[in-house]
Amino acid sequence: MTTKKALRIGLIGCGFMGRTHSNGYLRVKNFFPELAYQPVLKAVCSRTESKARAFAEQWGYESVETDWKALIARDDIDAVDICTPNDKHAEIAIAAAAAGKMILCEKPLARTLRESADMVAAIEKAKVPNTVWYNYRRLPAVTLAKQIIDSGKLGRIFHYRANFLQDWTINANLPQGGEGLWRMDADVAGSGVLGDLLSHCIDTALWLNGSITTVSAVTETFVKERMHQLTGKVEKVNIDDACSFMCRFSNGSLGLFESTRYARGHKALYTFEINGEHASIRWDLHDLNRLEFFDNADASTLKGWRSIHVTDGDQPYMNKWWVPGLGIGYEHSFVHQVADFLKSLEDGSSCPPTFREAFETQKVCQAVQDSAATGTWKDTHAA
Amino acid sequence: MTTKKALRIGLIGCGFMGRTHSNGYLRVKNFFPELAYQPVLKAVCSRTESKARAFAEQWGYESVETDWKALIARDDIDAVDICTPNDKHAEIAIAAAAAGKMILCEKPLARTLRESADMVAAIEKAKVPNTVWYNYRRLPAVTLAKQIIDSGKLGRIFHYRANFLQDWTINANLPQGGEGLWRMDADVAGSGVLGDLLSHCIDTALWLNGSITTVSAVTETFVKERMHQLTGKVEKVNIDDACSFMCRFSNGSLGLFESTRYARGHKALYTFEINGEHASIRWDLHDLNRLEFFDNADASTLKGWRSIHVTDGDQPYMNKWWVPGLGIGYEHSFVHQVADFLKSLEDGSSCPPTFREAFETQKVCQAVQDSAATGTWKDTHAA
Amino acid sequence: MTTKKALRIGLIGCGFMGRTHSNGYLRVKNFFPELAYQPVLKAVCSRTESKARAFAEQWGYESVETDWKALIARDDIDAVDICTPNDKHAEIAIAAAAAGKMILCEKPLARTLRESADMVAAIEKAKVPNTVWYNYRRLPAVTLAKQIIDSGKLGRIFHYRANFLQDWTINANLPQGGEGLWRMDADVAGSGVLGDLLSHCIDTALWLNGSITTVSAVTETFVKERMHQLTGKVEKVNIDDACSFMCRFSNGSLGLFESTRYARGHKALYTFEINGEHASIRWDLHDLNRLEFFDNADASTLKGWRSIHVTDGDQPYMNKWWVPGLGIGYEHSFVHQVADFLKSLEDGSSCPPTFREAFETQKVCQAVQDSAATGTWKDTHAA
Amino acid sequence: MTTKKALRIGLIGCGFMGRTHSNGYLRVKNFFPELAYQPVLKAVCSRTESKARAFAEQWGYESVETDWKALIARDDIDAVDICTPNDKHAEIAIAAAAAGKMILCEKPLARTLRESADMVAAIEKAKVPNTVWYNYRRLPAVTLAKQIIDSGKLGRIFHYRANFLQDWTINANLPQGGEGLWRMDADVAGSGVLGDLLSHCIDTALWLNGSITTVSAVTETFVKERMHQLTGKVEKVNIDDACSFMCRFSNGSLGLFESTRYARGHKALYTFEINGEHASIRWDLHDLNRLEFFDNADASTLKGWRSIHVTDGDQPYMNKWWVPGLGIGYEHSFVHQVADFLKSLEDGSSCPPTFREAFETQKVCQAVQDSAATGTWKDTHAA
Repeated sequence: MTTKKALRIGLIGCGFMGRTHSNGYLRVKNFFPELAYQPVLKAVCSRTESKARAFAEQWGYESVETDWKALIARDDIDAVDICTPNDKHAEIAIAAAAAGKMILCEKPLARTLRESADMVAAIEKAKVPNTVWYNYRRLPAVTLAKQIIDSGKLGRIFHYRANFLQDWTINANLPQGGEGLWRMDADVAGSGVLGDLLSHCIDTALWLNGSITTVSAVTETFVKERMHQLTGKVEKVNIDDACSFMCRFSNGSLGLFESTRYARGHKALYTFEINGEHASIRWDLHDLNRLEFFDNADASTLKGWRSIHVTDGDQPYMNKWWVPGLGIGYEHSFVHQVADFLKSLEDGSSCPPTFREAFETQKVCQAVQDSAATGTWKDTHAA
Repeated sequence: MTTKKALRIGLIGCGFMGRTHSNGYLRVKNFFPELAYQPVLKAVCSRTESKARAFAEQWGYESVETDWKALIARDDIDAVDICTPNDKHAEIAIAAAAAGKMILCEKPLARTLRESADMVAAIEKAKVPNTVWYNYRRLPAVTLAKQIIDSGKLGRIFHYRANFLQDWTINANLPQGGEGLWRMDADVAGSGVLGDLLSHCIDTALWLNGSITTVSAVTETFVKERMHQLTGKVEKVNIDDACSFMCRFSNGSLGLFESTRYARGHKALYTFEINGEHASIRWDLHDLNRLEFFDNADASTLKGWRSIHVTDGDQPYMNKWWVPGLGIGYEHSFVHQVADFLKSLEDGSSCPPTFREAFETQKVCQAVQDSAATGTWKDTHAA
Repeated sequence: MTTKKALRIGLIGCGFMGRTHSNGYLRVKNFFPELAYQPVLKAVCSRTESKARAFAEQWGYESVETDWKALIARDDIDAVDICTPNDKHAEIAIAAAAAGKMILCEKPLARTLRESADMVAAIEKAKVPNTVWYNYRRLPAVTLAKQIIDSGKLGRIFHYRANFLQDWTINANLPQGGEGLWRMDADVAGSGVLGDLLSHCIDTALWLNGSITTVSAVTETFVKERMHQLTGKVEKVNIDDACSFMCRFSNGSLGLFESTRYARGHKALYTFEINGEHASIRWDLHDLNRLEFFDNADASTLKGWRSIHVTDGDQPYMNKWWVPGLGIGYEHSFVHQVADFLKSLEDGSSCPPTFREAFETQKVCQAVQDSAATGTWKDTHAA
Repeated sequence: MTTKKALRIGLIGCGFMGRTHSNGYLRVKNFFPELAYQPVLKAVCSRTESKARAFAEQWGYESVETDWKALIARDDIDAVDICTPNDKHAEIAIAAAAAGKMILCEKPLARTLRESADMVAAIEKAKVPNTVWYNYRRLPAVTLAKQIIDSGKLGRIFHYRANFLQDWTINANLPQGGEGLWRMDADVAGSGVLGDLLSHCIDTALWLNGSITTVSAVTETFVKERMHQLTGKVEKVNIDDACSFMCRFSNGSLGLFESTRYARGHKALYTFEINGEHASIRWDLHDLNRLEFFDNADASTLKGWRSIHVTDGDQPYMNKWWVPGLGIGYEHSFVHQVADFLKSLEDGSSCPPTFREAFETQKVCQAVQDSAATGTWKDTHAA
């Protein structure tokens, strides 16, 4: 038996994201066996004990907690993974940092820029390893896009556009808030599609194309009132059902972003495209193993968008999986983030995006929200 | 021989659009032989006589003129087709209307809203049949989109998005203005991609989704100076290289529009998508025979975007052409507009978009220009 | 006025192909004005005079004939275009050759290899310019494929596959034979999908990949009996509804071909793909402006199938049409063949495929038919 | 803690398939927690002990063996999973059956029909649960295809076509045989692409479209000699590099199959298409979450191929994974087969394809081999 260092995980939250992260921890041993650190699933926390127990049984956590403060207080936990609804991120992260725990926090960092600032301050004071689960960066095709851009192949950048389109809330009878629906409750989520979907687009954009300086945004709530699951009453809907914005990047390029939960026919159409002087790139989450690439250096009569099936061993992360042509799925992005976090522990580097980096996304989100409220352009650093 | 009524055409301008229109006139006899009116190519006008003569020879015009006023003055001309650069549209159209000629005017209507208003006033005073060459409406797939929307299949509309992306001016050594390049000279063209490309997107949008009430826009000129072909000097570039805008439609839906000549890899990527409560539609000029359609009424496990190959005899215009599966091209949109114009003469209806309708597009363009200049939202009817 | 040499055309047959050819003749003047020869539509022949007159009026033929022998006998006809059903090809072509006329013959050359051999003998004896309308060669994307192959980019060829799938005869109530349905009558057509569809695939294959040496084929007639339109009686169906074959090319590659009129959902899915040591190519008639190309010389992590939108001025034939990004249609293949035929008259070259070349396709068809009948491999040159 | 019944697994072979199966066993606990049986990874066997130990460590096997007979002899093993090269399948399976073990055998069943027959006899005599890893059946899109077909939506079937195209052996310097390359050694593998790739296509076809009655096949070996890794000598290559066949199904439809490792640009292009009277289906492994479906019952002007993104909870297996729009990968097919095998133990049903069913695929393979050798049609039941 090799002696691996254990990274003892305490997971807070048993929802959809609890599942994706747990799967991430469990797969690393099989697919990244060379890593010095390996996760040990020490405890999972949910306010409802039966729920915590069932989750622990299913995912192999050694113990359960019903109070997240108790989990943080445990000596046998190295890292706290925050998978709660957004309204708990700040409080838990700040407490965990104070307790000296490493932190892996689900995105968006928090509901507001204010909460986020407090979190960043706390974690930087505590000097603990940390990362935020903007998982899409680590899909192989997206990482390949980053490599192409970093290689300089695109030249000067002119345009960046991204959208994240869903259609699951068109039904006006869908209740808001409560179990499984907290994303529709502005008090809990902070915002609607802005924090849920656009924040992903912004994180990727900042990573691929640098900082955003100014934004002009618009939001809309198509269904104005919905029954709230917790109160049983029809209440005003306070989240943004749709949010779009135009922006300028500091590299001089123009950006265009859109997200909605009212685009009939799209389940999770997260696409981005970047147009440079010499080449362009585009990607679509629905076909996540493919990256499209146009290279103006190709022979004049033979230029065309290439559909790159990113499944070869020399493409990012793919030497860990199967053989060329055989695709992977959404969940693998989390496995890769776990692996990269573990690697960062080996060499003392950070595992991006850190809280500090996610704070930049938060600034753009705040500027978007302010712009939509006022109908004016907003500077992201005035936020 | 059947006795057809002749519509005697006088064409002003021998450029790219002169070719597309001439081809439109010539094809009607072969593919729409049932029409009571048939075009007769009476005269073509260009300031350069040799150019006019060569064009007349190639396209079968009976005579040439070098002064457009002379052409308008001729008794044997029923309809004047204006294919000049934008700076001549207003003067010619107003004169032609005064002379009682029918007018077919290339888009955009004019350089400015002011010019456009004068044109509309003139033509409505003259009460002559008129149409503006926003040709894309008449591609079969686009007309099919209109039919689907009119059938009510989409239900309440939430989103409309369109873009028109090209890449032909990325080269900073491309001169501005002059022969073949007037589209890059703001004095002649009025604007850059806004009038050239976005106006198409706006025309289609108004047709498919009704009026636009407010807009927030941004423009950019990536290459700030270029050699001017006429002066031989390096001069400031005054056109918009890129222009995007967000908007609200009067039906409550949100719109998002983008156009640029700096999207490496796209030659003429004109796409639009419309998301309704029950169904969605999207289209791409690069694959103009296809319309994509998502119908939420399809069986739950079998829903998907349909790729409709619009080449069947029961689809718009296609009974005039070949057999199912065999596509047509860009040029056919002009043939269809000629045919529809001729039909409108039979029954006294108008052939949309008329000057009045194109004026609505012009209002949106003006609001976009004003919004980009001021960084604020603009009402289209304040323009 | 320039003095062009007239190529005086006599067209025999007013059906679908009569329309595509006539359109081809008419467009050349507008799009290939530089050619020394230009077609003049002298006469069209149909057994039904009213039909001939209507066709002449629609397409601008100067006169009509009801007896093809009379047409051939005319001094003012330079070239005879044969658009009749297949059963008349041989008789007309042989007579026209004897009369010293140039011949443009619709594909397939004839019903049988025997008829074809007589035609080739006649035309070669008469030494008249000739061509067979295997029009798909001249779609720009297909011609570009030929250029790529000729450049040697593919290296050794391993595989060629093609299919031509339609679905228009699935309905068992569709009658066979008679007006508009002669393709379903074996006596008139010679065969079903073999001569109608597979012959196109074979012609392209021989052009792109060289000769076929041996074949093993299978045919099927799914609907065994249909009402015959001429007799009014239910009769045995003698054509092949579907036909597939495997083959070996003389360059050592393997071929696989399939055609059918029973592939629900496909209107005219003519696709081919060729796999070489270094690169591969594929094409689909449904999206005829696109060519897909895979180049193994691309950088390791960036390899992918390119979707080449064949609409640039430096791609085959496209400098004659519009601007990059704007597609053309099915009918343009005929315009190109007319232009190439006219060019061949200027320099005395042949306009492929000639009768001699089309005879090679006929040999493969005969071998396919014989193989399907016997269930054994057949040598194409034993035919 | 719930009390689950343990299915104690003994895995023989540590190669690529050993990894996919092991991952399958490990994921079931997380994603199919409701199953009464859960796998326990008891032992893994490899002739090289260090290899077995490393594999056991990585995948969590409790113990190792270096002699498969020892593994079979163990009382604490319930099921033997055979992942060796093909030449060992028969001997191990027969011994395991004799020992009363359940058997999960990698495909193809064996090198020859003779070996396969012995295996079926042994396992049916032993009456042990068994299954063969034709995993593609259990990709959600493929299972959905089966459901559509079983619903009768396609009506009478006319055509079935499939291919499996790769390009990894084009390099003539690639050695044959030995570590990692046994698929290129006919003595070990039994055949080349026939057993490796076409057997998958045949398994799916028999499942979706019923039995195949007669075949006509061709094979080719493009690179005739390669250095053998074990002998170090250049030797004749005895496998088929490419294999195609035409066939007839007992339901009256025609089939066309092709596989090769010389299709430049394709890594694992496994596609199938089935054309019925009323509807058609097609699928491509490269985009495994999508199923294309054409329904002729759709409104006349709105018919088109639907691209169904098979990621909704009401589509096969997908309620176990993430949320709509988020795809899964290749490996999930194995998880599903493990889950289905475990379920079959609960209710005493079989888990298709059983050895008996895989034997039918073997018969087709044998007929294909015989047909290619003789150049004649072969009856699959004469084999």
